[in-house]
Amino acid sequence: MVVKSQIKFIKSLRRKKIRAEQKLFVAEGPKMVSELYRSALVPYKIYTSGSVMEEVASEFLERVTVSELKQMSSLKNPNQVLGVFYMPTPKKVDFTDWVVALDEVRDPGNLGTIIRMCDWFGINHLLCSTHTVDCYNPKVLQATMGAIARINIIYSDLPSQFQNTEVPVYGSFMDAAPVYDEKMPTSGILLMGNEANGISQEIEKHIAKKIGIPQYAAKTSESLNVAMATAILLNEIRRG
Amino acid sequence: MVVKSQIKFIKSLRRKKIRAEQKLFVAEGPKMVSELYRSALVPYKIYTSGSVMEEVASEFLERVTVSELKQMSSLKNPNQVLGVFYMPTPKKVDFTDWVVALDEVRDPGNLGTIIRMCDWFGINHLLCSTHTVDCYNPKVLQATMGAIARINIIYSDLPSQFQNTEVPVYGSFMDAAPVYDEKMPTSGILLMGNEANGISQEIEKHIAKKIGIPQYAAKTSESLNVAMATAILLNEIRRG
Repeated sequence: MVVKSQIKFIKSLRRKKIRAEQKLFVAEGPKMVSELYRSALVPYKIYTSGSVMEEVASEFLERVTVSELKQMSSLKNPNQVLGVFYMPTPKKVDFTDWVVALDEVRDPGNLGTIIRMCDWFGINHLLCSTHTVDCYNPKVLQATMGAIARINIIYSDLPSQFQNTEVPVYGSFMDAAPVYDEKMPTSGILLMGNEANGISQEIEKHIAKKIGIPQYAAKTSESLNVAMATAILLNEIRRG
Repeated sequence: MVVKSQIKFIKSLRRKKIRAEQKLFVAEGPKMVSELYRSALVPYKIYTSGSVMEEVASEFLERVTVSELKQMSSLKNPNQVLGVFYMPTPKKVDFTDWVVALDEVRDPGNLGTIIRMCDWFGINHLLCSTHTVDCYNPKVLQATMGAIARINIIYSDLPSQFQNTEVPVYGSFMDAAPVYDEKMPTSGILLMGNEANGISQEIEKHIAKKIGIPQYAAKTSESLNVAMATAILLNEIRRG
């Protein structure tokens, strides 16, 4: 039995501001919570309305009714388990390998997919401009499929981050020369822009080289989605 | 003013069975409907509750009230315009260029993204197994961003399609040798499998070569999403 104030507190974590103040975030569903629990993340509390989650130490586990879970959850149909975790403290970025930087990516699904792609391609550090969607937004978390626990994500002013390193910034542009012609170095920053406006002028100044993915169709189609473009460019970087 | 029977008819098109019988499908929103109207697709009727859609010939245009549009729409917040179009008649597949084949891709977002990627990379023909999600499902349409009008999509038994050509079938597998080592021919079939189960055994028999995308992270992460994998493999095919 959880007290009302606890339910209210968890609901308050739907707001980015409160999450940032409390340094806590919410993940839902047994699979996701279980994966985060097994990761390096520190749990605050795991609520369950079912008999699952045997792996969770009793000090973190709290049984709740289906109705209580429904009140806490941001999902229409809550899935038995809701976990509250401490946000990890951002680590110093290691620029000896490739790093991804995002200039105002706004769509939660796109950010989640990009985090997942970073995980697949062994990119350990992700720089996000301060106006990029919050990575602890529930929709982002859902799209990462647990990869959120394995990537060091830093929200900050991108130019100040770029000043910490000598590695070149490669900016993705629709109309740039094909990435295929480019001999990619062993370390660098892959910079991706906003869904509608691309990379902002302010940030563009810091780019060493522009790269693009050629369009093979007639020029009728939409631009390449930023998550897809990131996937393709990370593959290009890793294939060498 | 539309009659009730018309609203009921349009609502019935939410069902795949009815769509297939009537050879009609519904698209929503001014941008999408406008793009489809300008394509080779034949319109049946365009309903608008606003003053947009000047380009649409009056014979196809019907003004409706916001309330009527809401009744027709499958969206929570309908966006002014709803278009009903005839499904194009599938064309004969041209195997002289690469073709993509899907073995039971079930997620509408994945299929929509794959259609969009085919469009980007100039793939004109998409073969779908009969249990692949319907491409006229509203969520698929939304994710294609209009690319649906430019790709020839055929639902059929994949092996019978493969019998129509001599080109090799390249199957995407998690654990296959890296695609980077493979010299890809100028034509072939890129076969992608189901989200959970991959390519079925029945279909696997028809594969000439298995290809994979190496995972650079520790083997903790989820499998690569099928839409992402398709994007990366199409890029590999086109980069040569």
